[in-house]
Amino acid sequence: MTDLVTFGETMLRLSPPDRERIESTSSLELRAAGAESNVAIAAHRLGAEAMWTSKLPDSPLGRRVVAGLRRYGIDTEIAWSDEGRQGTYYLEHGTDPRGTNVIYDRADAAVTTATTDDVALDQIRDARTFYTSGITPALSATLESTVDEVLAAAQDAGTTTAFDVNYRSKLWSPDEACESLTALFPRIDVLVTAERDARTVLDRSGDAADIARGLADDWDFETVVVTRGSNGALALHDGEIHEQSAFDTDTVDPIGTGDAFVGAFLARRLDGESVPTALEYGAATAALKRTIPGDVAVVTRAEVEDVMDTEGREISR
Amino acid sequence: MTDLVTFGETMLRLSPPDRERIESTSSLELRAAGAESNVAIAAHRLGAEAMWTSKLPDSPLGRRVVAGLRRYGIDTEIAWSDEGRQGTYYLEHGTDPRGTNVIYDRADAAVTTATTDDVALDQIRDARTFYTSGITPALSATLESTVDEVLAAAQDAGTTTAFDVNYRSKLWSPDEACESLTALFPRIDVLVTAERDARTVLDRSGDAADIARGLADDWDFETVVVTRGSNGALALHDGEIHEQSAFDTDTVDPIGTGDAFVGAFLARRLDGESVPTALEYGAATAALKRTIPGDVAVVTRAEVEDVMDTEGREISR
Amino acid sequence: MTDLVTFGETMLRLSPPDRERIESTSSLELRAAGAESNVAIAAHRLGAEAMWTSKLPDSPLGRRVVAGLRRYGIDTEIAWSDEGRQGTYYLEHGTDPRGTNVIYDRADAAVTTATTDDVALDQIRDARTFYTSGITPALSATLESTVDEVLAAAQDAGTTTAFDVNYRSKLWSPDEACESLTALFPRIDVLVTAERDARTVLDRSGDAADIARGLADDWDFETVVVTRGSNGALALHDGEIHEQSAFDTDTVDPIGTGDAFVGAFLARRLDGESVPTALEYGAATAALKRTIPGDVAVVTRAEVEDVMDTEGREISR
Amino acid sequence: MTDLVTFGETMLRLSPPDRERIESTSSLELRAAGAESNVAIAAHRLGAEAMWTSKLPDSPLGRRVVAGLRRYGIDTEIAWSDEGRQGTYYLEHGTDPRGTNVIYDRADAAVTTATTDDVALDQIRDARTFYTSGITPALSATLESTVDEVLAAAQDAGTTTAFDVNYRSKLWSPDEACESLTALFPRIDVLVTAERDARTVLDRSGDAADIARGLADDWDFETVVVTRGSNGALALHDGEIHEQSAFDTDTVDPIGTGDAFVGAFLARRLDGESVPTALEYGAATAALKRTIPGDVAVVTRAEVEDVMDTEGREISR
Amino acid sequence: MTDLVTFGETMLRLSPPDRERIESTSSLELRAAGAESNVAIAAHRLGAEAMWTSKLPDSPLGRRVVAGLRRYGIDTEIAWSDEGRQGTYYLEHGTDPRGTNVIYDRADAAVTTATTDDVALDQIRDARTFYTSGITPALSATLESTVDEVLAAAQDAGTTTAFDVNYRSKLWSPDEACESLTALFPRIDVLVTAERDARTVLDRSGDAADIARGLADDWDFETVVVTRGSNGALALHDGEIHEQSAFDTDTVDPIGTGDAFVGAFLARRLDGESVPTALEYGAATAALKRTIPGDVAVVTRAEVEDVMDTEGREISR
Amino acid sequence: MTDLVTFGETMLRLSPPDRERIESTSSLELRAAGAESNVAIAAHRLGAEAMWTSKLPDSPLGRRVVAGLRRYGIDTEIAWSDEGRQGTYYLEHGTDPRGTNVIYDRADAAVTTATTDDVALDQIRDARTFYTSGITPALSATLESTVDEVLAAAQDAGTTTAFDVNYRSKLWSPDEACESLTALFPRIDVLVTAERDARTVLDRSGDAADIARGLADDWDFETVVVTRGSNGALALHDGEIHEQSAFDTDTVDPIGTGDAFVGAFLARRLDGESVPTALEYGAATAALKRTIPGDVAVVTRAEVEDVMDTEGREISR
Repeated sequence: MTDLVTFGETMLRLSPPDRERIESTSSLELRAAGAESNVAIAAHRLGAEAMWTSKLPDSPLGRRVVAGLRRYGIDTEIAWSDEGRQGTYYLEHGTDPRGTNVIYDRADAAVTTATTDDVALDQIRDARTFYTSGITPALSATLESTVDEVLAAAQDAGTTTAFDVNYRSKLWSPDEACESLTALFPRIDVLVTAERDARTVLDRSGDAADIARGLADDWDFETVVVTRGSNGALALHDGEIHEQSAFDTDTVDPIGTGDAFVGAFLARRLDGESVPTALEYGAATAALKRTIPGDVAVVTRAEVEDVMDTEGREISR
Repeated sequence: MTDLVTFGETMLRLSPPDRERIESTSSLELRAAGAESNVAIAAHRLGAEAMWTSKLPDSPLGRRVVAGLRRYGIDTEIAWSDEGRQGTYYLEHGTDPRGTNVIYDRADAAVTTATTDDVALDQIRDARTFYTSGITPALSATLESTVDEVLAAAQDAGTTTAFDVNYRSKLWSPDEACESLTALFPRIDVLVTAERDARTVLDRSGDAADIARGLADDWDFETVVVTRGSNGALALHDGEIHEQSAFDTDTVDPIGTGDAFVGAFLARRLDGESVPTALEYGAATAALKRTIPGDVAVVTRAEVEDVMDTEGREISR
Repeated sequence: MTDLVTFGETMLRLSPPDRERIESTSSLELRAAGAESNVAIAAHRLGAEAMWTSKLPDSPLGRRVVAGLRRYGIDTEIAWSDEGRQGTYYLEHGTDPRGTNVIYDRADAAVTTATTDDVALDQIRDARTFYTSGITPALSATLESTVDEVLAAAQDAGTTTAFDVNYRSKLWSPDEACESLTALFPRIDVLVTAERDARTVLDRSGDAADIARGLADDWDFETVVVTRGSNGALALHDGEIHEQSAFDTDTVDPIGTGDAFVGAFLARRLDGESVPTALEYGAATAALKRTIPGDVAVVTRAEVEDVMDTEGREISR
Repeated sequence: MTDLVTFGETMLRLSPPDRERIESTSSLELRAAGAESNVAIAAHRLGAEAMWTSKLPDSPLGRRVVAGLRRYGIDTEIAWSDEGRQGTYYLEHGTDPRGTNVIYDRADAAVTTATTDDVALDQIRDARTFYTSGITPALSATLESTVDEVLAAAQDAGTTTAFDVNYRSKLWSPDEACESLTALFPRIDVLVTAERDARTVLDRSGDAADIARGLADDWDFETVVVTRGSNGALALHDGEIHEQSAFDTDTVDPIGTGDAFVGAFLARRLDGESVPTALEYGAATAALKRTIPGDVAVVTRAEVEDVMDTEGREISR
Repeated sequence: MTDLVTFGETMLRLSPPDRERIESTSSLELRAAGAESNVAIAAHRLGAEAMWTSKLPDSPLGRRVVAGLRRYGIDTEIAWSDEGRQGTYYLEHGTDPRGTNVIYDRADAAVTTATTDDVALDQIRDARTFYTSGITPALSATLESTVDEVLAAAQDAGTTTAFDVNYRSKLWSPDEACESLTALFPRIDVLVTAERDARTVLDRSGDAADIARGLADDWDFETVVVTRGSNGALALHDGEIHEQSAFDTDTVDPIGTGDAFVGAFLARRLDGESVPTALEYGAATAALKRTIPGDVAVVTRAEVEDVMDTEGREISR
Repeated sequence: MTDLVTFGETMLRLSPPDRERIESTSSLELRAAGAESNVAIAAHRLGAEAMWTSKLPDSPLGRRVVAGLRRYGIDTEIAWSDEGRQGTYYLEHGTDPRGTNVIYDRADAAVTTATTDDVALDQIRDARTFYTSGITPALSATLESTVDEVLAAAQDAGTTTAFDVNYRSKLWSPDEACESLTALFPRIDVLVTAERDARTVLDRSGDAADIARGLADDWDFETVVVTRGSNGALALHDGEIHEQSAFDTDTVDPIGTGDAFVGAFLARRLDGESVPTALEYGAATAALKRTIPGDVAVVTRAEVEDVMDTEGREISR
């Protein structure tokens, strides 16, 4: 039985080497990248059997996505399509005061037409946890329905449902997001939200604990996790607030930090760890992720625990 | 005054290094590539003042296209758009028996919405020659109209119009192409067609000379050039057939060969050379192009003439 | 149910880029490579559910091997070990008259201590076909026993057993190989051997058909395949000889050609194809493999069938 | 009409990747680099029509220079020469305490023989601003005369003349520089000088404002800009001192910072902005330049304004 | 006459580019690296005639080691062996909180069987100083004897013997190291030890000066150097303690820092400099080493002296 | 005692990767390259103790040259100069019909001022053979004298003198070369000349044997070797003509072929082999050189003998 199934879009990420500008570069590094597959991989690396399901174009590009995910240990269940594009995104790493720049080129991706027929529904029903994020319903009206139906199917089958708000301003407005996402909230057991998204999209105020309590009160979530960037994270579970600070990190690539956090948190929860312990794994995995090029947390559980245990690290030889 | 203005789509070309497969590669080489800009550059390298005009997204991707063209000496006149994608194509170089594989990802490119307002119409009217190819009207209904209007404007201004059939089976069917292209033929002075396209799309038969004569009879072209790959090329001009064999070449990159031929042919014609001489320049430029990575004929006129003059080449030191 | 399980050593392959010499290079390309995993991947690409099982060091090097295999779609079942090295091999591509040079650095690899406890025995018993090659018993006395036991277990469970002689002179002498391998032959259903190995190791003479018949007579194999490099291959099955010529190919990387042949042959047999048809798939896959960098046949079934169907291939666009 | 024409030497810059030493490297990154072309590009990126004029060897090396400049949008007007070298410089990026090391190999460059016949004099006369720096007269006696004549021609034509002292100790002594440059000062409207150069070469003392006032008094400049590295810059114009602090930056490549400042300052002045506003654009462009590999400020005006407007930048997605 | 001969193992170092993980990388950078050859090179760069002697496999891998050392100016005297591996190590550069990770693959290296017959004993006897480190006897019992015999031969010949404790926990335990190394101490004139190793292996306590005094008292060393990482170093010589602080450095690659220190110290001592001056050279060379990719201090004496002389360094042009 | 000392210019060779054009490339591969150091290395690889002596700028560029030579095993004796450039050459590999293009940038190299004080005269006197080529006197009048004096010194000391005509049309005219070189001929024992150079420069006619005989008659050479490219080579020694055909080769890099031939020929002669055997070594080394990137024959004697012995080579594993 698979512990965790995730569903969403994974893109090809194209980025110039070093700090080169897209306008100047003669080559692009190629990686597979997407919130839900990032979460599946982080969870797998922390001990869960994880699968990502989606719809991809039946082309070298779609196969490149699968190759980029399977290599890190997860399984994939793909609906191969003759129609639809492979979504891509271009990433230009900045350094202060030049911001890191993301250019999405994901319109009309094959996944935007995915219905429940294209998703590994049986495996989702059999899994212990299902995860998707707010990016998925933002991609198309079809996906908005599909996410709703998949969450319902998971809920009916007794699969725990986890969801990260993951607001993307380039995909929809806060109001659109709020309306769409809150319609899904009754089907969600574990809600993850960045504090910023809670304020912008879900119209929440107060401190992070207030936000968690308010969301739990309104939607009866089993667990609410509020992530706060370099300020750490916080979870409400069984009426209790658990706070976790962030680990210091010298950032090589910031993309995918939140997904690493969520994947590790879910994996450790699946393995029976308490919420505070799972939060600590999440924070340590997120810190490690930032030291690794690409969207994906290519870590081992031992490395994560080493971050949790140790203050200073040196050369091991 | 610009000698030659070309109009069409230029894409970003993404290809794995060496003979690597897309599914296996961790990086992609990035170049700007498009039939009409290829022609402009080849013409410039052979002595013409050349400009490419088009519509591009106002993004690093669009600017990367311009950078990739201007570097080879041509001018550009761009309508920068906030809407529409930057078209791309993925190229996997094969070697026998593995075919070279092209994956287009060009739907909804910004250029597909280009009207005459987006095109450097004044420069086209002032130019001595205007060029586009059958790819352009194939991209959208809007472009089909725009091409028609631009050709009309050129014709009215006394600008010579040149056109390459350039049939792309991934864009439209032979019947669609035939109907659309022949509607443009009355506005065209110099027609270029691959012998294969003449048979497939324009429903021609007989040998290459028959094809040229038939087309000239039907549409009253000033010049008809029929390209025949490794069998060379042939032109009908002033009722006379001129044949040109292909130069031997050890191919590094076959893409853009036809465009190199056309660009060089047009440049030398613009400079007052006879049709047979221009054909020879075209064939030599095409042969050199095949030795150069990328779509573009990065050559000098002296190098082309060296191919025309010399049988064997050695190390020059 | 898995169609095919293979067992053997997979190494990290380290090779200088282009035609650079090891003595001169400042970087090495890194790939996973091993006869049995090559066969599993080729079979998977041709339609089989395939798994590779082995023992690897629990280190980034061992994980790199798995990453390099799973990315092409197969499953892996690994015994992770705290002892033993990760085998590597250094490959220097030559060009005439400089030979391609392989330097093995595989002594004391973790796999050399693999017993049946380290192998996915249940999956082998459940599989339709099991495959290993003569390299595996050559690696250690332990592996010699393990291969014998695994073949016995497969045989007892009704799993078809396939075996490629794959003689490596750097691992053992012809006499040692002959003694060890023929002891395994009673447990083998499908024997594959290079014609050269049959002569050198198995002491056979006559033409390839004579060799096949002689081996079948002596050991009662269900199928004998004799591979003959650029001379094609030949199979004896149900008393009948089937010949298959090789497809022309412009070689980029010759390593893994035989494995591609075997993997494709087994996959198509598993799918119910006749021996001659499976041979043709094998030959076409082998030809494609030679155009691809690395040990692995990163192909699709459609591409293989395109080689079988077509004489000349061009740019598809 | 071109807004800005610049004249000077542009070299090929050769630098090892990462922090590699020249003695250890097996490859060199290649870029076009020169103070005056850097200024032209920065000005173009901030909105000016800009052209660089110079003399180059008629070789792939000279053409590579033009390719490296035109790609960023400026025009070039080149005297192609059969004599003279292409100047190069080798750059080894250090990190504390290893200094960044520049090795010039620019003796006998084609440009050192450039007379007014080799320069786009008509375009300079038609331009609104002409710019060169103290490097140009330092390169040869011929260039010293040429710069004098070009400045005179510009002045006579009513073109504003801008000049950066840009002292290079590897080219001449402070005394030589002082004598040569001050002879040109009567022909200059806008003088730019590093505070350090003003002290070393122009023998100035007091604070930066004293220096600006002293220079303006002595030579009657319309504008004097004193750049002060991380301490910002200061301008004297119409008798008023305007101060501008530097923006914080995490440096990737420091070369070309001053040129980025000057180019942006000139472009914004050409567009009618006030001196303090132009200084702010200069400082923000300089800060961005330091985050970009190469000598050239590959920025957009929107990015520069984003630096001016924003305190903190994040990932935009 | 050679000033300095060193003896030990040099490995091939394989590391992913940038901050890539081994599990994700498709290429590895290749360099030669070993404590004793690092010391020889640092000494050579600071003015000594230096030679490294060892045993290597007679293969491209062994030759690659020699190529990687000779290029930096030292001589080599090699026993070429048909048996034994080429030791390698894999290096994954981390960044906080991800530690830098070293994976040794050095078992059964050819050098582990080196006897005095394989070593350039004549040159050692003729040299002014001989150096090896605690890594060498840790590699095999044979080497433990060989080191003892070589040190004895050097001592008998009047060659100064220098030795760095260089404890490697992956090779032996502190107790094993202590027993083996202290048995060699009577043959050693100049002992270098990290403060940490003195505590862990040699069971010393007190501050660094106490450690130096205690070691000198117990073993009658001519000189004892205690290195203290970012806290600098300290030497006891002629009964006097000399302290040296570390120079600030922005680390690019920390491996080889201690060897750079020792090599420079020995070279300057050989050239007649005082202990405190030699310590300062050592510290400056170590600081520079950290700015350079690879194990080796590719520096010049002038650069080292520039670090010693200057507070701030800028771009030199 | 050194067997062979060579003297001449070694440049840094800068070439775009793959078949890229200089005008398009963003990086250049860097290697050390020069006829006389090529010969020294080839001789060393075939068994001779070899040294290259020259004058270089005291800079990272000069040190890079030494690093690029010493790595292949030869010794160097350098006069380090504060004046003079490091010569470079740019190499663009072509493929038919695009020629391979060499752009020299070697004027005013430090070596052009080398006198006998800058050359390792003692080692030349002690060596068994001294070698230089016609490139050296072509570089400057100073070098013309120096070569004459060095040859005289060698002759006086009983060192065999070997000389390759090596005509470079970019350095001087045939008449200049003839006058200068024939003035040196009385001091030369072993003359090597391409058949083409003998015709162009030395004004010889007839077949290769006639040329050899004529030269020997006129100048009393001990040995005359005439190289004939793909037609092999021929030597006249002791009145006898020895012919050697060329080995087939699939060329990767043609530069340095002749030097490889000469170096191997000299090494085997030094080792006492007969002229025909030495010719065969020369031809096989030359064939191998063409398969190796760079100017230098990075081969082993065993590999060369393998070419001499074997018809077909396969993968060795």
